[in-house]
Amino acid sequence: MADVAARAGVSLGTVSHVLNHPERVKESTRLRVQDAIDALGFVRNAQARSLAAGENRTIGLVLVDLGNTLFVDIARGAQQEATACGMTLLLANSDNDDALQDVHLDFFEGARVSGILLAPMTDPRTGVDRVRRRGTPVVVLNYDAGRPDCCTVLVDNERAGHLAARHMIDLGHRRLAFVAGRDHLQPVRDRRRGVRRAVADAGVELVEIPVGDLSARGGPAAVAQLAALPAGRRPDAVIAVTDLLGLGVVQELGRAGLAVPGDIAVMGCDYDKRAWGGSVPLTSVRMPGEEVGAAAVRLLVDEVSAPGLHRHETVVVPPSLVVRESSAGRAPAPTDVG
Amino acid sequence: MADVAARAGVSLGTVSHVLNHPERVKESTRLRVQDAIDALGFVRNAQARSLAAGENRTIGLVLVDLGNTLFVDIARGAQQEATACGMTLLLANSDNDDALQDVHLDFFEGARVSGILLAPMTDPRTGVDRVRRRGTPVVVLNYDAGRPDCCTVLVDNERAGHLAARHMIDLGHRRLAFVAGRDHLQPVRDRRRGVRRAVADAGVELVEIPVGDLSARGGPAAVAQLAALPAGRRPDAVIAVTDLLGLGVVQELGRAGLAVPGDIAVMGCDYDKRAWGGSVPLTSVRMPGEEVGAAAVRLLVDEVSAPGLHRHETVVVPPSLVVRESSAGRAPAPTDVG
Repeated sequence: MADVAARAGVSLGTVSHVLNHPERVKESTRLRVQDAIDALGFVRNAQARSLAAGENRTIGLVLVDLGNTLFVDIARGAQQEATACGMTLLLANSDNDDALQDVHLDFFEGARVSGILLAPMTDPRTGVDRVRRRGTPVVVLNYDAGRPDCCTVLVDNERAGHLAARHMIDLGHRRLAFVAGRDHLQPVRDRRRGVRRAVADAGVELVEIPVGDLSARGGPAAVAQLAALPAGRRPDAVIAVTDLLGLGVVQELGRAGLAVPGDIAVMGCDYDKRAWGGSVPLTSVRMPGEEVGAAAVRLLVDEVSAPGLHRHETVVVPPSLVVRESSAGRAPAPTDVG
Repeated sequence: MADVAARAGVSLGTVSHVLNHPERVKESTRLRVQDAIDALGFVRNAQARSLAAGENRTIGLVLVDLGNTLFVDIARGAQQEATACGMTLLLANSDNDDALQDVHLDFFEGARVSGILLAPMTDPRTGVDRVRRRGTPVVVLNYDAGRPDCCTVLVDNERAGHLAARHMIDLGHRRLAFVAGRDHLQPVRDRRRGVRRAVADAGVELVEIPVGDLSARGGPAAVAQLAALPAGRRPDAVIAVTDLLGLGVVQELGRAGLAVPGDIAVMGCDYDKRAWGGSVPLTSVRMPGEEVGAAAVRLLVDEVSAPGLHRHETVVVPPSLVVRESSAGRAPAPTDVG
């Protein structure tokens, strides 16, 4: 930096201003310093700066699965809020791999980011512990870790299940199927709880269909179980715990010669755009991912700005119903795209 | 680090091994060092390490728009290839903002990543220049910058336009509309070129409909222009340059009481899952985003590993047609989801 200052004929402070507050420097001075920097190949070294300052203006977001569009929405909401707060957001995708999640957490930790947003799929205790014990603020997204030592932002998945079942009941269906995996995934457990509550309140029937694969590949197993039910117990509506599974059910019903929703209504529950390429537009429940991401950044910035005053809290964001052809039929089905 | 070594009763070298090559250290020693680290709150400092080493095993990916699912696919392909190569991939979303793109490039540059993948929307000359002149390898994705000093990975958008027009011609349509913006965006220019070539080769008619907005909001302007054509010049098929614009056209035709594809066939051109929530499943052209991301990482790793031997190249990945109801009708339209 001293070389740059000497070459440009300015003080060290001016070089620092050009790097950090260019708006405070005269244009001609700024250009002279920039020329010197270019000539000397000087790299503005964010690492050296943040080592000195003990922090930087960066937030690290570690996501379980960038393939699921919910997490893309979360990332976009977080990024826009971060930009609005003058922070830089970096993303790292764990790709459903806990070991990779740890690699990303350690990387951000080592890079001394201001704070970390963590959207895990399973209990993030180990991950949160390793971040928390260094004192780095962390906000957990989309998972209720039940921790008093960090903020949490959740989607109300119980309400998502309730909205789904309520919608099918309102359409006149009296025997609902809930197609889902085991309860070790919180969203599955919570959506099931909501479905059961709506069904119990309305006094209709519920058939629970377990599948091992929550992607479209689970469709054939689900339809085989439906077909094996005695004729009098066949459901008239299917709620799939994910949109991809809903897509798989619609495809498999089509192969079996059944019309959706004519013979049987189908819907998903998680607003995953990957599942929207099928032949029948799929009813779903919109997950407010962008709000989740934005709320998480706000909580983190509050904690970073005023660690002494900050109080940890849990924010729960409500989902909403999106009706399409797979439940309501062709016309006049409202269209909705997000 | 010396405190950790003293507390654990091991040498500094052993602490370093535990941090960097834990597989070379006995489990009991590793646990003792880990306990000391936990007790002292020692932060493994990636910044200090990379400052010393002059590089690290991290790749920075700067994307123009994480909302467009093509870029999510690119990110996923890049991440999987990076993991396979033992690298960590970090993402930064420019959100269509050139200034934010520069912030991200400077951040990665300052963090001394091994290399940068840049997917810009407009000419990335300034961005590439600022990275290249520090000597950091950069691969440009999805934009033909015509630069001999870096590798490039492209989708063949001319072929995408050709596939789209060829599909409509094969379905028997003889008067095609191409709805698009100006040619300052490379994908628009290239897809138009492909459409024109297919139309000229087949000797059918082409009507070009200019719109200012390539999102679904461009639909009404497009349909108004179509409706204003003399009856004998009305197209029987519409190719929208983006899927979102295709969705907007389908929605607006619906409002005008026209059936898709009965009265007029419609398709998009860029496989953007955001546009798939409409009432009529949209025919499109699949963009091989994951292949683009993976190819870019391979080129970058080759350059980083053997800078002297590396030869810059341009890889062009072919798109493919995905037929759905908006062009081919309800049945027996093949279904395709990615």
